[in-house]
Amino acid sequence: MEPCIRYNIRVSNLSIPNRVIVTERTQRHGHAGLIIWFTGLSGAGKSTLADALERKLFDQGRQVYVLDGDWVRKGLCSDLGFSPAARSENIRRVGEVAMLFANAGVIVICACISPMRADRERLRHLCAPGRFVEVFVNAPLDVCESRDPKGLYAKARANQLKDFTGISSPYEPPLHPEVEVRTDKFGIEECLARLSAVIEPCLRTN
Amino acid sequence: MEPCIRYNIRVSNLSIPNRVIVTERTQRHGHAGLIIWFTGLSGAGKSTLADALERKLFDQGRQVYVLDGDWVRKGLCSDLGFSPAARSENIRRVGEVAMLFANAGVIVICACISPMRADRERLRHLCAPGRFVEVFVNAPLDVCESRDPKGLYAKARANQLKDFTGISSPYEPPLHPEVEVRTDKFGIEECLARLSAVIEPCLRTN
Repeated sequence: MEPCIRYNIRVSNLSIPNRVIVTERTQRHGHAGLIIWFTGLSGAGKSTLADALERKLFDQGRQVYVLDGDWVRKGLCSDLGFSPAARSENIRRVGEVAMLFANAGVIVICACISPMRADRERLRHLCAPGRFVEVFVNAPLDVCESRDPKGLYAKARANQLKDFTGISSPYEPPLHPEVEVRTDKFGIEECLARLSAVIEPCLRTN
Repeated sequence: MEPCIRYNIRVSNLSIPNRVIVTERTQRHGHAGLIIWFTGLSGAGKSTLADALERKLFDQGRQVYVLDGDWVRKGLCSDLGFSPAARSENIRRVGEVAMLFANAGVIVICACISPMRADRERLRHLCAPGRFVEVFVNAPLDVCESRDPKGLYAKARANQLKDFTGISSPYEPPLHPEVEVRTDKFGIEECLARLSAVIEPCLRTN
C-alpha cells in the first residue's frame, strides 16, 4: 500500500502519532499513488501522450500530474547540461520528485527521454513492486526526425546541438517495459486504451 | 489564480488545447495551491508544527503535503552537504519541488531551516503574489538547544558537527514573514490557530 520504499522513512518515523499516512490519501483519492514513466526518443510523442493521459485520468476524478522533462529542465534541473553524468543526475532528480508525488497519493506521469537503462532501473528499484510503470513510447528514429516538433533534429544534424539522443548520444530502449506504445502505428486513443489496460490494475486499492 | 509564475510556462505553452490547467485543479480541490515555508533553527518545532498543520488541513478535506528538509536530504538532495553553497542549492531544489506541488494544486508545507534570507527571498520572487507564505518558527537558541530532539546541538558543541546553524553557521531571521509563531511561548494549538488565520485567506478561490 505504501507507494515508494524511499519515503517509507517518513511513515515509519512516527514522532507524531496522528501524522497523515499514505493509506489515508489512498482511501481519500480512491487510488494509490503511482509513477508512470514515459521513455523514448525526442519526437516519439511522450509529452503529447502524457498530457492526454493526464486529461483522461483527471476527468475520471483521479489525482494526476505530469512532470515533463522539458520544463523540469527550466526549473529544478536548470543547472544541468546534457553530458552523460548530467543526464543521469537529471533522471535521478525527476525520479525523486516523482516518488514524493506518489507518496502524496498522486499518479505522476513523467515524460523524459531518459536514454539510459541503468538510470531507469535504479529508479524502479527504489519503488515498491508495482508502483513504477515503465512505458516505452516508441517510434522509429526516422519518424521522430521527420516530425521534429522542436526543430532539434535539424539542429543536431547541422552539428549545432551536441549529445542529442538518437543522433550523437545513445538511446537504450527498455528490455521489459510494462507497456510499449507505437505512436507511428496507432493514434492517441488507441495508445491511451493500451496504457489504461496496464495502469488500471495498479490503481486498485484492494 | 495560477499558483506559481515559474510553471506558467506549462499553462501558456498549449500544444494540446485540453491540457489540464491550474484553475481546474483549484476548482476541484476547492482551494488554490500554496507554498507554506517554515524557517527556523533546528529544534524550533518546524517538523512538529508542519505535521500538525498537515493533519488539520487534511482533515478539512484539503490537498496538503509536507516536504521535510530532513528527509528530502535523504533523497533529492542526498548529494549535497552543508556548506553555504550546498545549503543554498538545497533550498533552491526544495523550492522548485514546492512550486511543482503548488502547480498541481497542493498546499505544500516546507519545513527547512533555510538559514539565509537571500535564498528564501529568491524563492518568494519566483512565486505569484500571495502564493508564498513565509512562517518564522521562532524559539530562542537556548530553548532549541535544551530541546535538542536529535542530539545535534550536543554534537555541534563538541565540534563533531561543522556548519551547524546557530552554533557554527549563521541564521538570518525573516524581516517580514507573513507570520511568526513563538513555539517557546505557545502550544501547538495556539500556533496552529495563528497559522490558520493567515493561511485561510490565501486558500480562497474567489
